[in-house]
Amino acid sequence: MQVQQIDTLVVAGVGLIGGSFALALKRAGRVRRVIGVGRTLANLESALALGVADEITQDIAAVAHRADMALLAAPVGQMGALMRALAPGLRPGAIVTDGGSTKSDVAALYREHLPDHLPWCVPAHPIAGSDLSGASAAQYGLYENRRVVLTPLDETLPEAAHAVAELWRACGAEIHAMSPAEHDAVFASVSHLPHLLAFAYVDQVAAKADASRCFDFAATGFRDFTRIAGSHPEMWTDISLANREALLAELADYQAGLSRLAALLENGDAAGLRQLFGEARAARTRWHQQFLRRS
Amino acid sequence: MQVQQIDTLVVAGVGLIGGSFALALKRAGRVRRVIGVGRTLANLESALALGVADEITQDIAAVAHRADMALLAAPVGQMGALMRALAPGLRPGAIVTDGGSTKSDVAALYREHLPDHLPWCVPAHPIAGSDLSGASAAQYGLYENRRVVLTPLDETLPEAAHAVAELWRACGAEIHAMSPAEHDAVFASVSHLPHLLAFAYVDQVAAKADASRCFDFAATGFRDFTRIAGSHPEMWTDISLANREALLAELADYQAGLSRLAALLENGDAAGLRQLFGEARAARTRWHQQFLRRS
Repeated sequence: MQVQQIDTLVVAGVGLIGGSFALALKRAGRVRRVIGVGRTLANLESALALGVADEITQDIAAVAHRADMALLAAPVGQMGALMRALAPGLRPGAIVTDGGSTKSDVAALYREHLPDHLPWCVPAHPIAGSDLSGASAAQYGLYENRRVVLTPLDETLPEAAHAVAELWRACGAEIHAMSPAEHDAVFASVSHLPHLLAFAYVDQVAAKADASRCFDFAATGFRDFTRIAGSHPEMWTDISLANREALLAELADYQAGLSRLAALLENGDAAGLRQLFGEARAARTRWHQQFLRRS
Repeated sequence: MQVQQIDTLVVAGVGLIGGSFALALKRAGRVRRVIGVGRTLANLESALALGVADEITQDIAAVAHRADMALLAAPVGQMGALMRALAPGLRPGAIVTDGGSTKSDVAALYREHLPDHLPWCVPAHPIAGSDLSGASAAQYGLYENRRVVLTPLDETLPEAAHAVAELWRACGAEIHAMSPAEHDAVFASVSHLPHLLAFAYVDQVAAKADASRCFDFAATGFRDFTRIAGSHPEMWTDISLANREALLAELADYQAGLSRLAALLENGDAAGLRQLFGEARAARTRWHQQFLRRS
């Protein structure tokens, strides 16, 4: 297999995701020059000082023509504007990929803003969340044994998807492919729904008349269950709205499940509760064993 | 303050909770002799071998007259039968306490089965959960810096509650007092509800047509959010039914909260979502700082 070399990589959004991609590729000798693009000069200067980027700019349009590959690692809400700014300057064959956590909406943005460039557009989602952000959060090894989901468009050339996959593999990641809709349904289920459930739960406790006493007796179960309620509100607003349809379906299912559970409780149906809890415990235990093996 | 000394402590249910209480009190020199009571001979023999108990029996009635204090550390579902068996032999002044995770139902059991003994009955809840069980799970130090909630009955003598509090303090615990109803409302909120939410959530993912793919992409957020779905189904069936009224109220509130959240999503109300998520994050962050200080 041919080793993929990138001469100039443009990274829009030099934070945990984009910065760690740049660092890993530089260490692997897969990229010669990284141009960091961002809105905040202080963060860009820090990226330069840390060696995450070799060159920095706040104007992506000005460097579009130099990109062999562009990674859009900014919040999804900024991706349309970035694509629009890239479009006029991009050379044919320059690959555009992204790190957005939702994919149907990003696929639509590619279609809207880069309609003539779709063969070289490769929507992707590196699964490597963290509470950290900014260039100083970038780290070697972030993607070791992590998963990256590629959701190529119908128009995406296989060699473009292959090139992106190869670079992620060079970062240590394992590659999976799905359609954007499949991706969004899976992540609505295992990531986006639990975030919403945790936010709603903490809000409920906080709204109680005796909230401070309740919090006072919350222990390790509460701590783990609510950890994701500490996630970034802006980011999760974007994700929730971007994946609204799949999330509303998940929420409706969940509401129906809670109604069934409440009925078991109301009827004092011990056998029904035991079965429901027992199935959950068995599924969770099986999952956790698999998770430990793969992480 | 007078040091409380117990000559003979009867521990019904020699597992994590009861066994660790016995060990801590023996080490602190607060108890001379521990009689372990249980249904499973193998576990009792292990308690004897490990020095958790000095004497063992499957027949609590036979040792009731020797108890200066009895701790009922069996599942709540067995407590009525234990109290009934204790009642005829108990000497006046012998303290009866328990380690049940719900308190209104246990208070009702004391009234039903020990109506003449209520001045010496002290319902309690040591907050020290763990996945471990059995005598071999008993450990010195389990209660260091943990909390124990006492929920004395109206009839409970202050000196009886004081004696129980002193022994828990000798185990290293911090004592709090509430009414049984207050206790159950607080724990419905911060412990029982999240367990039900986690069980229902895992069941939902497990029931999906593409469950195995979903589980395959579940990561650390999922892991922490669902940890409590690995809890014991029997125990949580008992707790849920014992605290049914408070839990149904919590579930109804939660359903209403999810409906509000779904409406924000449907209306594409970014500002509303940001506010809801932001308040949850702020409350969770404040709580976590307090939790780190006290643990």
